[in-house]
Parts: sequence; structure tokens; C-alpha cells
Amino acid sequence: MLPQPVKRLFTPGPLTTSPSVKEAMLVDVGSRDDEFIAVVRDIRRQLLALGGVSQAQGYEAILLQGSGTFGVEAVLSSAIPPQGKLLILINGAYGERMLAIANRHRLAADVLRWDENQITDPQAVRRRLDQDPTLAHVAIVHCETTTGLLNPVEEIGNLARAANRGFIVDAMSSFGAIPLSLTAASIDFLISSANKCIEGVPGFNFVLARKPALAACQGNARTLSLDLFEQWQGLEANGQFRFTPPTHALLAFAQALRELEAEGGVAGRAKRYQANHAALMAGMTALGFRCYLPPEHQSWIISAFHYPNDPAFQFEDFYRRLARHGMVIYPGKLGKVACFRIGNIGRLTARDIQELLEAVAAVLREMGVRTPVAPPR
Amino acid sequence: MLPQPVKRLFTPGPLTTSPSVKEAMLVDVGSRDDEFIAVVRDIRRQLLALGGVSQAQGYEAILLQGSGTFGVEAVLSSAIPPQGKLLILINGAYGERMLAIANRHRLAADVLRWDENQITDPQAVRRRLDQDPTLAHVAIVHCETTTGLLNPVEEIGNLARAANRGFIVDAMSSFGAIPLSLTAASIDFLISSANKCIEGVPGFNFVLARKPALAACQGNARTLSLDLFEQWQGLEANGQFRFTPPTHALLAFAQALRELEAEGGVAGRAKRYQANHAALMAGMTALGFRCYLPPEHQSWIISAFHYPNDPAFQFEDFYRRLARHGMVIYPGKLGKVACFRIGNIGRLTARDIQELLEAVAAVLREMGVRTPVAPPR
Repeated sequence: MLPQPVKRLFTPGPLTTSPSVKEAMLVDVGSRDDEFIAVVRDIRRQLLALGGVSQAQGYEAILLQGSGTFGVEAVLSSAIPPQGKLLILINGAYGERMLAIANRHRLAADVLRWDENQITDPQAVRRRLDQDPTLAHVAIVHCETTTGLLNPVEEIGNLARAANRGFIVDAMSSFGAIPLSLTAASIDFLISSANKCIEGVPGFNFVLARKPALAACQGNARTLSLDLFEQWQGLEANGQFRFTPPTHALLAFAQALRELEAEGGVAGRAKRYQANHAALMAGMTALGFRCYLPPEHQSWIISAFHYPNDPAFQFEDFYRRLARHGMVIYPGKLGKVACFRIGNIGRLTARDIQELLEAVAAVLREMGVRTPVAPPR
Repeated sequence: MLPQPVKRLFTPGPLTTSPSVKEAMLVDVGSRDDEFIAVVRDIRRQLLALGGVSQAQGYEAILLQGSGTFGVEAVLSSAIPPQGKLLILINGAYGERMLAIANRHRLAADVLRWDENQITDPQAVRRRLDQDPTLAHVAIVHCETTTGLLNPVEEIGNLARAANRGFIVDAMSSFGAIPLSLTAASIDFLISSANKCIEGVPGFNFVLARKPALAACQGNARTLSLDLFEQWQGLEANGQFRFTPPTHALLAFAQALRELEAEGGVAGRAKRYQANHAALMAGMTALGFRCYLPPEHQSWIISAFHYPNDPAFQFEDFYRRLARHGMVIYPGKLGKVACFRIGNIGRLTARDIQELLEAVAAVLREMGVRTPVAPPR
């Protein structure tokens, strides 16, 4: 029945999940049945707790079908009113995707761009907000999965709040493994996904929102399926999704949340991922690879590495050979620089990283790429 | 780990799936890895075959994240051009939902409505199309899950084609268990979902489309996530979803398709569901329940039953007691008539139906409702 031998996933997700998370999917539940409604309610409560907030503090968690991008599109197309104007901070492909969504919905959007190896600059954001009082919302990506870059979300959130602007954070690949408090970072909307650092399986995304900001979404949504306000109202009214939820993915997620708690919550998970990342960087550096980002901007989630300067290195070949070793890595997504990516999130330990590094070394030998590899041109 | 004792689901989905379908989810695969791409490619090919068509005949299958409604919204908001006008045929809640989607996107939409126990009338459709040549598309629900009513899709499709109009069919709860050929019914877009008669788990929907109609969608989509044309282009370019797919739900679906084939395809599945439905109707009639629909309009998918005329019958109580017996039924969705629904799709046989009927009889006794129940007022 399994379509292939099991591989380990060194990707930004879908990722390697625990056997018990997958086994939680071995039951069919009714999407309107009381026990399932209780599962959804508990998930919503626990997600708020992971963001350092609660319903009592005036925050809400909304679950929505589809990938993380569906969640980002739900927020942007629900939170920005017809006459609203949005400032998007871009230093990677996921910032660009927010702009693509804004353009698709004909939202008025202004942009500040940095190189993909530069963090967003709070001073530049402050100046832009000062110059243009019509910019009512600021949107940013926390961990840019393009590179693994970590943006200074807290600083930017606080200056946005001081300037009385809404703040939207795509925390897709960071939430659950990089401490982030919605109150401390003055976040109005945070979006993440089931199959990232909480180590669930893909099928839905979630939004944590400050209640007044969420209430202000009423009537704004440009779509039915991605109407954040109505999805929230539906969950509040009877605990149910408005439309069929991915019941199995939600059962897996409930188990993943239990395992996150058992690991010591966000701090515990961060520790394991940091160890994974340190092992990865040490090993890749020893093999001669150079990381795309300077260390001070690099998160412990995913890393981009330059292609070696050796004609014997062809990424597709490298990828497929690693896959035959049972190791799945990830292609690059940078505009101008040839990189590949390795994620170290999911149910992986430093031992898995060690075995990946051994496979990388073996594959380079197979390909006739000399090690340590030559630095990029 | 299981949140509750396993219950059988007599619902329109999510439904009871086979153990082997669920076990297919016990592996994590990379969403950009070759084997997964092969799984997606095979699913797309097999779905076309179930609709009686192929790529060689000029049809395409597109898979999209989210519930069935996401698929309906993707089609309507991608297929109807800015100046387009749509005729929606409504005799139930899912027809109304198409109207809600059209309204949300400010599509020009005209409506023909029938009572929820009446099928759509081809002559009325023909007259409306004759009267208004600007109606470029007609949309209909094949099996109205509100009641189980089966609309005369083939007849309406052929008259739409004769009048040179596009034809959109929501075949959510029928596809895979009621024979339907895209060519014979002149269908341009057919939408269905993973967790219906193919007996997969929820997580994605799919669209079968006639290629020229699909190609004409380019540039129309009002959203990024639900852009049918770009989703198709992405699948064609590299076999991948544009955004993270629900990998586990897709593996389960591949297994579900193998089991559908083993059962004898659509004809074999229809036979089992027909037997389930016949057992259900016989048993419910013997208990005194009356079906909402006249038999000639009733499909073998799901059925709506009037509440008995007995003050001891309260639906919520009835539902919860049945759930304690391990049987999950479904609430009604009719505007003015008090009904509940029982689905007989999913991995269920006439024996399961028999046990459900015994549980219904036992619960009525527990509640003090006399049997045979009194007919509705």
C-alpha cells in the first residue's frame, strides 16, 4: 500500500511527522459530531496559548481549509476594507506572494523591498508610515521560507501599533518553534499552517487574531470560502467549520499539539530544532558548502546553500540521488542566486541530520564533485 | 489516541472509509518528490476515466486544496468572465450556495428556482436561455445533498450545449456512484470532492473540465488560491500543486481509487449503494417514517425523512442517542420542512444499514416515541 520506501523529509513541509500523529488519522469522525467539535475547540484554545494569548485576553483562533497561502489570502482579502491600503514588507518569495494576493484582489498596496539576504529595516518602515497616513495595515513574513531569514517582527509590530496601524504576520514556518507573543509583537493577525513546526499533516491553516481587528473584517471578504469573519462566526455559533473540514488532519493536529506540549512547548521544540540546525550548519560547512544568509539573519528552521562551483554538480541529479538514499531536500526559490534548501523541522533529530550529511557526502562522491566543494562563483 | 469509540457515519461525508484507505496515510511524502508527483498524475488520469473521458479526448482534471465548496467557488470565479452572465438552477441549499458565491464575486447571475422536492425543468431552462442570449453559462447541482434529489443533468447539459452555453455541474455527492459521462451530458466543468462516493478522506476537491473551456478561464480568477487556470497550469508544468497539497489525503485517495476499481468501478459502487438505500427505505418505511422526496426523484446517496408527529421526538436527543449507539446521522437542511438525513455512502453495506435501523428502533423506544411513528403533520 505504501507507494514507496519511507523517506525522511528535510523540507519546509509537508514534513516528517511522528508515527503517532499519523496513527491519529486511523479513524473517521463526523464533522458535526460532538467529539469532533470538542477536538476543534481544544485546538483553537491551544493555538492561542502557543501565541501567548487567550480568548479572555481578546484573541481568537480560526481554522480554515487549504494550505497556508489560503490562510494568507483569507486574511488579506478579509482584513483590508474596500478603501484600505496595505504596506507589504518584502524580502523573499512569500512577501512577493502577499503582494500577488493583494494585486489579485485589487487591494491598494504599497511595498518596501529589501534584498533576500537583508532583514526588513524598522526605520524605513517607520518613515513610510509617517509619510503615508493612509497605510492602515502592515504585512510581513516572520521567517522567510525562501532563505530561512528571520525578520524583526516584534520591533516592526510595536512601531506599527504606536502608529495605530494593523499588523499582519505570516508566521507560516516559524509558529510553534520560534517564540512569538501576539501581545509583545502587537500582532492583529498571525497566519500559520498545520504542517509546519507543530508537526501536523497538511490540510488546513490557522489564523490567530485580535478580536476587534477580526470583528472589523465583517463584510469585507471578497470570497465565500476564504471569508475569515464568517469562518469565525461559524466556529463560534456551533463549533463547526462552515464547509467540510479535513477531519483526519485535525485529529492528527490534536495529537501533534499533545506531542509539542510533551516536548516542552515552543521552548522545547526550539531547542531540538536549534540542535538540528547547528549540526546541519557544521556539517555542510565542513563539506565546503556556503550558507546564503549571514548567520545573524538565519533562523533554525530552514537554510539555503549555494550550489558548489563545480560543473559536476547538477541540482536535479543531486536531489534525485539523495532521494534514492531516502533523503528529500528542497529546491531553491531565490530570484537570481542558485541555491538549494535544507529544512531541519519535523520529527527529526541531530542523528537524522548526521545521516543526511553522510548521504550528501556519498552523493557528491557518486557525482564526482570534489569535497570540500568549491565556494560559489 | 483515538478520541472516541469508532462510530459509523451515515452522512454525506466525511464518511466511513476502509481501513486500508486510512492506512495509506501512515507515510509522509515530499510534495515535490517524484513518487508523489506520479501519484497525483495517476489520480488525475483515473478521475477523467471515471467521468468517461481522457486527456486525449480534450479533458483535464485539476485537484485543489479545500472542501467541495472551494472547488465550486474556484470554478465559478474562474470560468465566468468579467462581462459574463450565469444561469443558476436551484432546488436546494447547494444551488443556493452557488448563488451566494456568484453574489460574493459580483458575477451577473440569473436564477431559476424550484421547490426542494421538484427536479429542475429542462423546458423552463430552454425558455430562459432562448429569452436571454447573454446567459453564457448554466450551473446545476447533480445530486442535491439537501434532499438526495437527482437533477436531469444530461438533458439540461445537452440543451445548454445546443444553445451554445457553457455547463457547470456540482456533482459533489454523486460522482463515482451515479454514472455520468462528461461527453454524454455536455459538461464543461464538473466539481466533486475527495470524501464523497470515491470514499477518500476530506482535504481536497477536484474539477474535470473540457480543455477549451478551461483555457478560456485564463485571467478571469478573482483569487490566487482558487485560480483554476493557474492550478491547472501548475499541475501541467511540473506535476505539482502550486501551494502545499494535503499529501496524506492524496495518498488515501489513490488507495480509494484502487478500491473503487476493485469493486467494479462506478457500476459496482452504484450497486452496493442502491442495495444500502433500498434496505434503508424499506426499514425506515416499516418504522413509519416518510421520505421527503417522491421516489422518482430520489437518488441512492442520501435521503431526508420527515420528523415524526410525536412530541416525544426531539431531533437533538434522537441524534445524540444514536451517536451513543455508534451511529452518526445528519441534520436536515431544508428551509421550511423539519427533516433529518441519512446517508448510505461510504464503506457501508446493507448489514450496517440493518444495524442502524435496529439502533433507530431502540432509540425511539428509549425516547418513548411509539412505532410505527405517526406521519408528519
